Amino acid sequence: MRALYLGPEGLVVRRDHPRPAPREGEALIRLLRAGICSTDLELVKGYAGFHGVLGHEFVGVVEEPTGGDWAGKRVVGTINLGCRRCPTCIGDGPEHCPERTVLGIAGHDGAFADYLTLPVANLLVVPDEVDDDVAVFTEPLAAALRIRDQVAVEPSARLAVVGPGRLGLLIAQVLALTGSRLVVLGRRAASLELPRQLGLQVGLSTEAPADAFDLVVEATGNEAGLAESLRLVRPCGTLILKSTFHGAATVDLTKLVVGEVRIVGSRCGPFAPALRLLASGSVAVRPLIDGRYPLERGLEAMAHAARPGVRKILLDP
Amino acid sequence: MRALYLGPEGLVVRRDHPRPAPREGEALIRLLRAGICSTDLELVKGYAGFHGVLGHEFVGVVEEPTGGDWAGKRVVGTINLGCRRCPTCIGDGPEHCPERTVLGIAGHDGAFADYLTLPVANLLVVPDEVDDDVAVFTEPLAAALRIRDQVAVEPSARLAVVGPGRLGLLIAQVLALTGSRLVVLGRRAASLELPRQLGLQVGLSTEAPADAFDLVVEATGNEAGLAESLRLVRPCGTLILKSTFHGAATVDLTKLVVGEVRIVGSRCGPFAPALRLLASGSVAVRPLIDGRYPLERGLEAMAHAARPGVRKILLDP
Repeated sequence: MRALYLGPEGLVVRRDHPRPAPREGEALIRLLRAGICSTDLELVKGYAGFHGVLGHEFVGVVEEPTGGDWAGKRVVGTINLGCRRCPTCIGDGPEHCPERTVLGIAGHDGAFADYLTLPVANLLVVPDEVDDDVAVFTEPLAAALRIRDQVAVEPSARLAVVGPGRLGLLIAQVLALTGSRLVVLGRRAASLELPRQLGLQVGLSTEAPADAFDLVVEATGNEAGLAESLRLVRPCGTLILKSTFHGAATVDLTKLVVGEVRIVGSRCGPFAPALRLLASGSVAVRPLIDGRYPLERGLEAMAHAARPGVRKILLDP
Repeated sequence: MRALYLGPEGLVVRRDHPRPAPREGEALIRLLRAGICSTDLELVKGYAGFHGVLGHEFVGVVEEPTGGDWAGKRVVGTINLGCRRCPTCIGDGPEHCPERTVLGIAGHDGAFADYLTLPVANLLVVPDEVDDDVAVFTEPLAAALRIRDQVAVEPSARLAVVGPGRLGLLIAQVLALTGSRLVVLGRRAASLELPRQLGLQVGLSTEAPADAFDLVVEATGNEAGLAESLRLVRPCGTLILKSTFHGAATVDLTKLVVGEVRIVGSRCGPFAPALRLLASGSVAVRPLIDGRYPLERGLEAMAHAARPGVRKILLDP
């Protein structure tokens, strides 16, 4: 089968990659659509030391097991595979299992291929009214929703999302559903065009006042964006780190301590609410699609996704 | 009067510093005892750019106003002086007022002198059963209690306090009162002698397992201690930054985001509960006293406080 494979020699398109064999409890899934995420770009740069098939945002059709209820179902899937035995798995789920593998990120081949495997326990059926181009946003939208699992967002709060990128615009839309005063901040006016079209308030991050926001979401993944976000959050406010950061960065600890700021790392989120919001049309995702490539043009797709200002690039096998 | 003064030329003992004149609403307080804090040591190194009389941990006697209820009262005092008009002051108190001054730290002469001034609104009467050597710990004990304002500490949680210093041992004692499994971690066995004598569990930080603690309090104030603390906190756990950090430091953002760690900056805390705990004898502070100097030997006192392993140095005018 075709697969976008990250090996020691870098990223390559393989045409003869072996089709994965589902293990007990796993489904074989034929890919319908996949999405490229900033984490995929970081993985290629060496983040997490992953070698294997990339990709963790997908929608597909279950081919095996052919018995039972799953055959032929159109599904999305959560990406963490835990041991299912440790206290973390039993108490909180697989997201923080120390033995976990992660689809297309750690120890488990991903979705940028004709076929992938996942435990059926990870799968959710996609409602008919959510088509493939929309369903492929389930994983990043769930990640955006994770913020609402972690902190109570008061409807009267002042919110800023720093970074109007592919993840930032999902976060902003999800948080705007609270009724909060929310502004999307970017460094370039051009990057604010789409959020404005989506009906979001926008502004240049450099012009935003210091200490002005109750909740700031850092969605740039770079050190400058982090410094800007920390500048913007008010004393006793909350700063959410929502992007993949590769390694260490310098943080202004004086502001953090004197301002009693709360920083919260945030990763994977709940799929079922994401599917409900996609089904209801409460979050616009189609305007984020900036390109579409077949698997064999995967390298071109990744290069396109890496360009500044580009939002979602899809792989359409 | 005598005063320990930090000027552009560094720290000096002045014998003819003018006695401060209380402004409207302020009391003139004669010093009975003061304590040296790590923040004082940082201020001398240039933190916050403060010039003036140092000192913010004190107990004293009100000399003026001579009318009203305050004359002759033995008092401690909160250290933030807000504008009392802004939404922050009205809603949350003066601790985060953007116009605030801070006793001995920012824009208001401090307590390392024969006399100091503070608004009477900042004062609390010290109960008779709390003597001066104990009462002088009210401010740092309140700072330790601030943690319990900010996060719910479950009695069944696993807690670590990193840094068995003058502040760390107050934090550890306060948190141990929750009934939690708490360990005080240090880098040198000698530093763990006192916490062991205080009945606290102790361990070497380098030997403590990664990801093992629900709540970690960073009380070293240095970058190595911060890195160690972040290593120790479990996924979805909380890391409290309780020390004065001067400027920026490098932080492992991958652990922060992937582990969904919560970092909370923590500063000044509630005085009334601190006085109650001192009055009840629930927190041992006398064993922390490592030295005592008159004001004119203030430079010697500061040098003593800066030595590794030294806990509280008092100024006894």
